[in-house]
Amino acid sequence: MKKAVVLVSGGMDSAVVLALAREAGFACHALSVSYGQRHTSELQAAARVAAAMGAVEHKVVTVDLRAIGGSALTADIAVPEHDAGERLDEGIPVTYVPARNTIMLSIALGWAEVLGADDLFCGVNAVDYSGYPDCRPEFIAAFERLANLATKTGVTRAAAGEPGLQVHAPLMRMSKADIAREGTRLGVDFAQTVSCYQADGDGRACGRCDACRLRAAGFADAGLPDPTRYAPGAESR
Amino acid sequence: MKKAVVLVSGGMDSAVVLALAREAGFACHALSVSYGQRHTSELQAAARVAAAMGAVEHKVVTVDLRAIGGSALTADIAVPEHDAGERLDEGIPVTYVPARNTIMLSIALGWAEVLGADDLFCGVNAVDYSGYPDCRPEFIAAFERLANLATKTGVTRAAAGEPGLQVHAPLMRMSKADIAREGTRLGVDFAQTVSCYQADGDGRACGRCDACRLRAAGFADAGLPDPTRYAPGAESR
Repeated sequence: MKKAVVLVSGGMDSAVVLALAREAGFACHALSVSYGQRHTSELQAAARVAAAMGAVEHKVVTVDLRAIGGSALTADIAVPEHDAGERLDEGIPVTYVPARNTIMLSIALGWAEVLGADDLFCGVNAVDYSGYPDCRPEFIAAFERLANLATKTGVTRAAAGEPGLQVHAPLMRMSKADIAREGTRLGVDFAQTVSCYQADGDGRACGRCDACRLRAAGFADAGLPDPTRYAPGAESR
Repeated sequence: MKKAVVLVSGGMDSAVVLALAREAGFACHALSVSYGQRHTSELQAAARVAAAMGAVEHKVVTVDLRAIGGSALTADIAVPEHDAGERLDEGIPVTYVPARNTIMLSIALGWAEVLGADDLFCGVNAVDYSGYPDCRPEFIAAFERLANLATKTGVTRAAAGEPGLQVHAPLMRMSKADIAREGTRLGVDFAQTVSCYQADGDGRACGRCDACRLRAAGFADAGLPDPTRYAPGAESR
Protein backbone atom coordinates (compact mmCIF):
# COMPACT_ATOMS: atom_id res chain seq x y z
CA MET A 1 0.00 0.00 0.00
CA LYS A 2 1.39 3.40 -0.97
CA LYS A 3 1.79 5.88 1.85
CA ALA A 4 0.33 9.36 1.81
CA VAL A 5 0.55 12.29 4.21
CA VAL A 6 -2.88 13.88 4.62
CA LEU A 7 -3.31 17.29 6.23
CA VAL A 8 -6.23 16.97 8.62
CA SER A 9 -7.47 20.12 10.35
CA GLY A 10 -10.55 18.74 12.03
CA GLY A 11 -12.86 20.62 9.68
CA MET A 12 -15.28 19.07 7.22
CA ASP A 13 -13.10 19.55 4.13
CA SER A 14 -10.06 17.64 5.31
CA ALA A 15 -12.27 14.83 6.67
CA VAL A 16 -13.54 14.32 3.12
CA VAL A 17 -9.97 14.49 1.75
CA LEU A 18 -8.91 11.74 4.16
CA ALA A 19 -11.86 9.59 3.07
CA LEU A 20 -10.94 10.16 -0.59
CA ALA A 21 -7.28 9.25 -0.01
CA ARG A 22 -8.35 6.05 1.75
CA GLU A 23 -10.75 5.25 -1.09
CA ALA A 24 -7.86 5.72 -3.54
CA GLY A 25 -6.00 2.99 -1.65
CA PHE A 26 -3.42 4.98 0.31
CA ALA A 27 -2.15 4.17 3.79
CA CYS A 28 -2.89 7.56 5.30
CA HIS A 29 -0.61 9.31 7.78
CA ALA A 30 -2.71 12.15 9.14
CA LEU A 31 -0.97 15.40 10.05
CA SER A 32 -2.36 18.31 12.00
CA VAL A 33 -0.39 21.49 12.35
CA SER A 34 -1.02 23.36 15.56
CA TYR A 35 -0.13 26.96 14.72
CA GLY A 36 -1.47 28.68 17.79
CA GLN A 37 -4.97 28.91 16.35
CA ARG A 38 -7.69 29.92 18.74
CA HIS A 39 -9.83 26.96 17.83
CA THR A 40 -7.85 24.18 19.57
CA SER A 41 -11.03 22.09 19.64
CA GLU A 42 -10.27 21.57 15.92
CA LEU A 43 -7.22 19.54 16.91
CA GLN A 44 -9.32 17.25 19.06
CA ALA A 45 -11.71 16.91 16.15
CA ALA A 46 -8.75 16.08 13.90
CA ALA A 47 -7.76 13.19 16.17
CA ARG A 48 -11.35 11.86 16.13
CA VAL A 49 -11.59 12.19 12.36
CA ALA A 50 -8.23 10.46 11.79
CA ALA A 51 -9.28 7.52 13.97
CA ALA A 52 -12.78 7.28 12.48
CA MET A 53 -11.54 7.36 8.89
CA GLY A 54 -8.88 4.68 9.39
CA ALA A 55 -5.67 6.71 9.29
CA VAL A 56 -2.55 4.66 10.10
CA GLU A 57 -1.47 7.31 12.57
CA HIS A 58 -2.12 10.93 13.51
CA LYS A 59 0.63 13.38 14.31
CA VAL A 60 0.45 16.94 15.57
CA VAL A 61 3.33 19.28 14.80
CA THR A 62 3.39 22.59 16.63
CA VAL A 63 4.58 25.80 15.00
CA ASP A 64 3.98 28.92 16.99
CA LEU A 65 2.69 31.43 14.45
CA ARG A 66 1.43 33.66 17.25
CA ALA A 67 5.04 34.91 17.31
CA ILE A 68 4.48 36.59 13.95
CA GLY A 69 0.78 37.48 14.35
CA GLY A 70 -1.10 39.08 11.50
CA SER A 71 -4.33 37.07 11.51
CA ALA A 72 -7.60 36.99 13.38
CA LEU A 73 -6.90 33.30 13.94
CA THR A 74 -3.53 33.76 15.67
CA ALA A 75 -3.41 37.36 16.90
CA ASP A 76 -5.69 39.59 18.93
CA ILE A 77 -7.94 40.56 16.03
CA ALA A 78 -11.69 39.90 16.23
CA VAL A 79 -13.12 37.14 14.04
CA PRO A 80 -15.79 38.84 11.87
CA GLU A 81 -19.38 37.81 12.41
CA HIS A 82 -22.22 38.32 10.01
CA ASP A 83 -25.98 38.41 10.06
CA ALA A 84 -27.57 35.60 8.14
CA GLY A 85 -28.04 36.68 4.55
CA GLU A 86 -25.28 39.30 4.64
CA ARG A 87 -22.78 39.07 1.82
CA LEU A 88 -19.39 37.72 2.80
CA ASP A 89 -16.47 40.14 2.78
CA GLU A 90 -14.75 40.63 -0.50
CA GLY A 91 -10.99 40.50 -0.82
CA ILE A 92 -8.68 38.68 1.55
CA PRO A 93 -10.34 38.25 4.97
CA VAL A 94 -8.67 38.94 8.34
CA THR A 95 -8.89 35.23 9.11
CA TYR A 96 -6.21 34.67 6.45
CA VAL A 97 -3.10 33.32 8.23
CA PRO A 98 -0.01 34.60 6.40
CA ALA A 99 1.66 31.77 4.45
CA ARG A 100 -0.38 29.19 6.37
CA ASN A 101 -0.80 26.63 3.62
CA THR A 102 2.82 27.04 2.55
CA ILE A 103 3.95 26.34 6.11
CA MET A 104 1.59 23.38 6.60
CA LEU A 105 2.49 21.79 3.28
CA SER A 106 6.20 22.29 4.05
CA ILE A 107 5.86 20.36 7.29
CA ALA A 108 3.82 17.67 5.49
CA LEU A 109 6.61 17.50 2.93
CA GLY A 110 9.22 16.94 5.62
CA TRP A 111 7.19 14.12 7.13
CA ALA A 112 6.52 12.57 3.70
CA GLU A 113 10.24 12.46 3.13
CA VAL A 114 10.85 10.73 6.46
CA LEU A 115 8.08 8.19 5.71
CA GLY A 116 9.09 7.63 2.10
CA ALA A 117 5.68 8.84 0.94
CA ASP A 118 5.37 10.40 -2.52
CA ASP A 119 1.86 11.75 -2.06
CA LEU A 120 0.53 14.70 -0.07
CA PHE A 121 -3.17 15.44 0.29
CA CYS A 122 -4.74 18.70 1.42
CA GLY A 123 -8.22 20.20 1.53
CA VAL A 124 -7.40 23.39 -0.34
CA ASN A 125 -10.46 24.70 -2.14
CA ALA A 126 -10.67 27.58 -4.58
CA VAL A 127 -14.43 27.92 -4.74
CA ASP A 128 -15.56 29.05 -1.32
CA TYR A 129 -12.21 30.52 -0.17
CA SER A 130 -11.16 32.35 -3.29
CA GLY A 131 -10.03 35.26 -1.10
CA TYR A 132 -7.07 33.23 0.18
CA PRO A 133 -4.18 33.33 -2.30
CA ASP A 134 -2.81 30.01 -1.05
CA CYS A 135 -6.03 28.19 -1.98
CA ARG A 136 -5.61 28.41 -5.75
CA PRO A 137 -4.61 25.71 -8.26
CA GLU A 138 -1.53 27.69 -9.31
CA PHE A 139 -0.36 27.72 -5.70
CA ILE A 140 -0.65 23.92 -5.44
CA ALA A 141 1.17 23.44 -8.76
CA ALA A 142 3.99 25.74 -7.63
CA PHE A 143 4.27 23.92 -4.32
CA GLU A 144 4.47 20.54 -6.06
CA ARG A 145 7.25 21.86 -8.27
CA LEU A 146 9.10 23.22 -5.23
CA ALA A 147 8.64 19.93 -3.36
CA ASN A 148 10.41 18.02 -6.10
CA LEU A 149 13.36 20.41 -6.05
CA ALA A 150 13.55 20.67 -2.26
CA THR A 151 13.84 17.03 -1.26
CA LYS A 152 15.97 13.93 -1.46
CA THR A 153 12.87 12.07 -2.73
CA GLY A 154 12.28 14.55 -5.55
CA VAL A 155 15.94 14.56 -6.60
CA THR A 156 16.12 10.75 -6.50
CA ARG A 157 12.93 10.30 -8.53
CA ALA A 158 14.01 12.85 -11.12
CA ALA A 159 17.43 11.16 -11.49
CA ALA A 160 15.67 7.82 -12.09
CA GLY A 161 13.23 9.38 -14.58
CA GLU A 162 10.34 8.48 -12.28
CA PRO A 163 7.31 10.62 -11.40
CA GLY A 164 8.05 12.61 -8.29
CA LEU A 165 6.08 13.90 -5.34
CA GLN A 166 2.45 14.73 -5.99
CA VAL A 167 0.34 17.25 -4.13
CA HIS A 168 -3.34 16.31 -4.34
CA ALA A 169 -6.06 18.87 -3.66
CA PRO A 170 -9.13 16.83 -4.62
CA LEU A 171 -11.62 19.44 -3.36
CA MET A 172 -10.11 22.27 -5.38
CA ARG A 173 -13.05 22.75 -7.72
CA MET A 174 -15.86 21.50 -5.48
CA SER A 175 -18.51 23.71 -3.93
CA LYS A 176 -19.30 23.28 -0.23
CA ALA A 177 -22.45 21.43 -1.31
CA ASP A 178 -20.35 19.04 -3.46
CA ILE A 179 -18.09 18.43 -0.47
CA ALA A 180 -21.06 17.72 1.81
CA ARG A 181 -22.47 15.25 -0.74
CA GLU A 182 -19.10 13.56 -1.35
CA GLY A 183 -18.49 13.15 2.38
CA THR A 184 -21.95 11.72 2.86
CA ARG A 185 -21.30 9.19 0.09
CA LEU A 186 -18.02 8.18 1.80
CA GLY A 187 -19.60 7.81 5.24
CA VAL A 188 -17.93 10.82 6.88
CA ASP A 189 -19.55 11.68 10.20
CA PHE A 190 -19.64 15.47 9.91
CA ALA A 191 -20.91 15.87 13.47
CA GLN A 192 -17.35 14.97 14.54
CA THR A 193 -15.81 17.79 12.53
CA VAL A 194 -15.33 21.40 13.63
CA SER A 195 -15.14 24.20 11.05
CA CYS A 196 -16.01 27.19 13.25
CA TYR A 197 -13.30 29.86 13.70
CA GLN A 198 -14.34 30.36 17.31
CA ALA A 199 -15.77 27.03 18.46
CA ASP A 200 -16.20 26.62 22.20
CA GLY A 201 -14.08 24.23 24.30
CA ASP A 202 -16.45 21.46 23.44
CA GLY A 203 -16.10 22.02 19.67
CA ARG A 204 -19.55 23.58 19.32
CA ALA A 205 -19.95 26.15 16.57
CA CYS A 206 -20.86 29.86 16.83
CA GLY A 207 -23.03 29.85 13.70
CA ARG A 208 -21.96 33.40 12.84
CA CYS A 209 -18.39 33.38 11.45
CA ASP A 210 -17.57 32.95 7.75
CA ALA A 211 -16.63 29.29 8.24
CA CYS A 212 -19.95 28.52 9.96
CA ARG A 213 -21.96 30.33 7.31
CA LEU A 214 -20.22 28.61 4.39
CA ARG A 215 -20.62 25.22 6.03
CA ALA A 216 -24.32 25.65 6.82
CA ALA A 217 -24.98 26.94 3.30
CA GLY A 218 -23.20 23.86 1.90
CA PHE A 219 -25.50 21.43 3.68
CA ALA A 220 -28.55 23.53 2.74
CA ASP A 221 -27.54 23.72 -0.94
CA ALA A 222 -26.93 19.96 -1.00
CA GLY A 223 -30.37 19.35 0.51
CA LEU A 224 -28.75 17.54 3.45
CA PRO A 225 -29.51 17.99 7.15
CA ASP A 226 -26.87 20.10 8.95
CA PRO A 227 -25.28 17.79 11.56
CA THR A 228 -23.15 20.58 13.07
CA ARG A 229 -23.20 20.85 16.85
CA TYR A 230 -23.97 24.48 17.65
CA ALA A 231 -23.25 26.19 20.95
CA PRO A 232 -26.23 27.33 23.02
CA GLY A 233 -27.11 30.81 21.79
CA ALA A 234 -25.63 30.19 18.34
CA GLU A 235 -27.55 31.85 15.57
CA SER A 236 -30.31 29.48 14.53
CA ARG A 237 -30.00 28.14 11.02
CA MET B 1 14.14 52.12 4.65
CA LYS B 2 12.86 48.94 3.05
CA LYS B 3 12.23 46.07 5.41
CA ALA B 4 13.71 42.61 5.00
CA VAL B 5 13.30 39.36 6.89
CA VAL B 6 16.69 37.72 7.37
CA LEU B 7 16.99 34.09 8.48
CA VAL B 8 19.70 34.02 11.15
CA SER B 9 20.78 30.65 12.48
CA GLY B 10 23.69 31.74 14.62
CA GLY B 11 26.21 30.21 12.22
CA MET B 12 28.84 32.12 10.27
CA ASP B 13 26.96 32.13 6.95
CA SER B 14 23.80 33.85 8.13
CA ALA B 15 25.86 36.41 10.10
CA VAL B 16 27.44 37.44 6.80
CA VAL B 17 24.02 37.50 5.10
CA LEU B 18 22.73 39.86 7.79
CA ALA B 19 25.74 42.12 7.32
CA LEU B 20 25.17 42.13 3.54
CA ALA B 21 21.46 42.95 3.92
CA ARG B 22 22.34 45.86 6.22
CA GLU B 23 25.00 47.06 3.77
CA ALA B 24 22.34 46.96 1.02
CA GLY B 25 20.28 49.40 3.12
CA PHE B 26 17.56 47.15 4.52
CA ALA B 27 15.96 47.45 7.95
CA CYS B 28 16.59 43.85 8.99
CA HIS B 29 14.10 41.77 10.96
CA ALA B 30 16.10 38.73 12.06
CA LEU B 31 14.29 35.41 12.29
CA SER B 32 15.53 32.22 13.90
CA VAL B 33 13.55 29.03 13.60
CA SER B 34 13.90 26.68 16.52
CA TYR B 35 13.13 23.27 15.07
CA GLY B 36 14.21 21.10 17.96
CA GLN B 37 17.80 21.06 16.82
CA ARG B 38 20.32 19.68 19.24
CA HIS B 39 22.49 22.73 18.98
CA THR B 40 20.36 25.22 20.95
CA SER B 41 23.48 27.27 21.63
CA GLU B 42 23.06 28.35 17.99
CA LEU B 43 19.91 30.23 18.99
CA GLN B 44 21.81 32.15 21.65
CA ALA B 45 24.45 32.92 19.05
CA ALA B 46 21.69 34.10 16.69
CA ALA B 47 20.47 36.61 19.27
CA ARG B 48 24.04 37.91 19.76
CA VAL B 49 24.63 38.16 16.03
CA ALA B 50 21.31 39.96 15.42
CA ALA B 51 22.15 42.54 18.11
CA ALA B 52 25.77 42.98 17.01
CA MET B 53 24.84 43.46 13.34
CA GLY B 54 22.14 46.04 13.99
CA ALA B 55 18.96 44.08 13.30
CA VAL B 56 15.77 46.01 14.12
CA GLU B 57 14.48 43.01 16.07
CA HIS B 58 15.08 39.28 16.48
CA LYS B 59 12.29 36.77 16.66
CA VAL B 60 12.40 33.04 17.36
CA VAL B 61 9.61 30.86 15.98
CA THR B 62 9.41 27.32 17.27
CA VAL B 63 8.40 24.40 15.07
CA ASP B 64 8.84 21.00 16.62
CA LEU B 65 10.36 18.91 13.85
CA ARG B 66 11.38 16.26 16.37
CA ALA B 67 7.80 15.03 15.92
CA ILE B 68 8.66 13.90 12.40
CA GLY B 69 12.31 12.92 13.02
CA GLY B 70 14.47 11.74 10.15
CA SER B 71 17.66 13.71 10.75
CA ALA B 72 20.76 13.49 12.91
CA LEU B 73 19.98 17.08 13.95
CA THR B 74 16.49 16.37 15.28
CA ALA B 75 16.27 12.62 15.94
CA ASP B 76 18.38 10.10 17.81
CA ILE B 77 20.90 9.54 15.01
CA ALA B 78 24.61 10.16 15.63
CA VAL B 79 26.22 13.21 14.03
CA PRO B 80 29.06 11.85 11.90
CA GLU B 81 32.60 12.76 12.91
CA HIS B 82 35.66 12.62 10.71
CA ASP B 83 39.37 12.52 11.09
CA ALA B 84 41.12 15.58 9.75
CA GLY B 85 41.91 15.06 6.09
CA GLU B 86 39.21 12.44 5.56
CA ARG B 87 36.95 13.12 2.59
CA LEU B 88 33.45 14.30 3.46
CA ASP B 89 30.60 11.90 2.82
CA GLU B 90 29.17 11.90 -0.64
CA GLY B 91 25.46 12.12 -1.28
CA ILE B 92 22.94 13.60 1.11
CA PRO B 93 24.28 13.53 4.69
CA VAL B 94 22.31 12.33 7.74
CA THR B 95 22.43 15.88 9.09
CA TYR B 96 19.99 16.84 6.31
CA VAL B 97 16.74 17.92 7.98
CA PRO B 98 13.82 16.99 5.71
CA ALA B 99 12.33 20.08 4.06
CA ARG B 100 14.15 22.33 6.52
CA ASN B 101 14.81 25.29 4.24
CA THR B 102 11.30 25.06 2.79
CA ILE B 103 9.85 25.23 6.30
CA MET B 104 12.14 28.05 7.46
CA LEU B 105 11.52 30.14 4.34
CA SER B 106 7.76 29.55 4.68
CA ILE B 107 7.78 30.97 8.19
CA ALA B 108 9.96 33.87 7.01
CA LEU B 109 7.41 34.45 4.25
CA GLY B 110 4.56 34.60 6.76
CA TRP B 111 6.42 37.16 8.86
CA ALA B 112 7.39 39.19 5.78
CA GLU B 113 3.75 39.43 4.88
CA VAL B 114 2.81 40.63 8.36
CA LEU B 115 5.62 43.24 8.28
CA GLY B 116 4.94 44.37 4.73
CA ALA B 117 8.47 43.31 3.70
CA ASP B 118 9.11 42.30 0.09
CA ASP B 119 12.57 40.86 0.67
CA LEU B 120 13.74 37.65 2.30
CA PHE B 121 17.39 36.81 2.90
CA CYS B 122 18.87 33.40 3.67
CA GLY B 123 22.34 31.89 3.87
CA VAL B 124 21.73 29.02 1.46
CA ASN B 125 24.94 27.99 -0.23
CA ALA B 126 25.39 25.50 -3.05
CA VAL B 127 29.16 25.19 -2.92
CA ASP B 128 29.98 23.53 0.37
CA TYR B 129 26.57 21.94 0.98
CA SER B 130 25.78 20.59 -2.47
CA GLY B 131 24.51 17.39 -0.86
CA TYR B 132 21.41 19.22 0.43
CA PRO B 133 18.75 19.53 -2.30
CA ASP B 134 17.26 22.64 -0.68
CA CYS B 135 20.54 24.55 -1.01
CA ARG B 136 20.48 24.91 -4.80
CA PRO B 137 19.69 27.98 -6.95
CA GLU B 138 16.72 26.19 -8.57
CA PHE B 139 15.23 25.62 -5.12
CA ILE B 140 15.48 29.34 -4.27
CA ALA B 141 13.96 30.32 -7.64
CA ALA B 142 11.06 27.89 -7.13
CA PHE B 143 10.46 29.20 -3.62
CA GLU B 144 10.41 32.80 -4.85
CA ARG B 145 7.84 31.86 -7.49
CA LEU B 146 5.74 30.07 -4.87
CA ALA B 147 6.00 33.02 -2.48
CA ASN B 148 4.48 35.35 -5.05
CA LEU B 149 1.55 33.00 -5.64
CA ALA B 150 1.01 32.18 -1.97
CA THR B 151 0.61 35.61 -0.46
CA LYS B 152 -1.52 38.71 -0.36
CA THR B 153 1.68 40.71 -1.04
CA GLY B 154 2.52 38.69 -4.15
CA VAL B 155 -1.01 38.88 -5.53
CA THR B 156 -1.24 42.63 -4.86
CA ARG B 157 2.13 43.37 -6.47
CA ALA B 158 1.31 41.25 -9.52
CA ALA B 159 -2.06 43.01 -9.94
CA ALA B 160 -0.30 46.38 -9.87
CA GLY B 161 2.37 45.19 -12.32
CA GLU B 162 5.04 45.72 -9.65
CA PRO B 163 7.96 43.44 -8.84
CA GLY B 164 6.98 40.98 -6.15
CA LEU B 165 8.68 39.26 -3.27
CA GLN B 166 12.36 38.52 -3.70
CA VAL B 167 14.32 35.73 -2.05
CA HIS B 168 17.98 36.64 -1.78
CA ALA B 169 20.66 34.02 -1.25
CA PRO B 170 23.78 36.15 -1.60
CA LEU B 171 26.17 33.38 -0.53
CA MET B 172 24.86 30.87 -3.09
CA ARG B 173 28.03 30.73 -5.19
CA MET B 174 30.61 31.61 -2.54
CA SER B 175 33.13 29.19 -1.10
CA LYS B 176 33.56 29.06 2.66
CA ALA B 177 36.79 31.03 2.19
CA ASP B 178 34.88 33.72 0.24
CA ILE B 179 32.34 33.89 3.07
CA ALA B 180 35.09 34.23 5.69
CA ARG B 181 36.71 37.05 3.68
CA GLU B 182 33.39 38.83 3.02
CA GLY B 183 32.44 38.67 6.71
CA THR B 184 35.84 40.01 7.71
CA ARG B 185 35.42 42.93 5.29
CA LEU B 186 31.99 43.66 6.85
CA GLY B 187 33.26 43.49 10.43
CA VAL B 188 31.45 40.29 11.45
CA ASP B 189 32.78 38.93 14.73
CA PHE B 190 32.91 35.24 13.86
CA ALA B 191 33.85 34.30 17.44
CA GLN B 192 30.19 35.03 18.30
CA THR B 193 28.87 32.55 15.75
CA VAL B 194 28.33 28.82 16.24
CA SER B 195 28.40 26.46 13.25
CA CYS B 196 29.07 23.16 15.06
CA TYR B 197 26.34 20.49 14.83
CA GLN B 198 27.04 19.43 18.40
CA ALA B 199 28.35 22.52 20.18
CA ASP B 200 28.44 22.38 23.98
CA GLY B 201 26.10 24.43 26.19
CA ASP B 202 28.53 27.29 25.99
CA GLY B 203 28.52 27.30 22.17
CA ARG B 204 32.02 25.81 21.91
CA ALA B 205 32.69 23.67 18.84
CA CYS B 206 33.61 19.97 18.63
CA GLY B 207 36.05 20.42 15.75
CA ARG B 208 35.11 17.07 14.24
CA CYS B 209 31.66 17.31 12.56
CA ASP B 210 31.18 18.30 8.91
CA ALA B 211 30.17 21.86 9.86
CA CYS B 212 33.31 22.34 11.98
CA ARG B 213 35.56 20.95 9.27
CA LEU B 214 34.09 23.10 6.51
CA ARG B 215 34.32 26.19 8.67
CA ALA B 216 37.92 25.60 9.71
CA ALA B 217 38.92 24.86 6.12
CA GLY B 218 37.25 28.13 5.04
CA PHE B 219 39.37 30.26 7.37
CA ALA B 220 42.50 28.30 6.42
CA ASP B 221 41.83 28.70 2.68
CA ALA B 222 41.20 32.42 3.15
CA GLY B 223 44.48 32.77 5.02
CA LEU B 224 42.61 34.12 8.04
CA PRO B 225 43.01 33.11 11.69
CA ASP B 226 40.23 30.77 12.89
CA PRO B 227 38.37 32.66 15.67
CA THR B 228 36.14 29.70 16.54
CA ARG B 229 35.85 28.87 20.22
CA TYR B 230 36.57 25.15 20.52
CA ALA B 231 35.56 22.94 23.45
CA PRO B 232 38.36 21.49 25.60
CA GLY B 233 39.37 18.23 23.93
CA ALA B 234 38.19 19.38 20.48
CA GLU B 235 40.37 18.14 17.67
CA SER B 236 43.20 20.62 17.24
CA ARG B 237 43.22 22.42 13.94
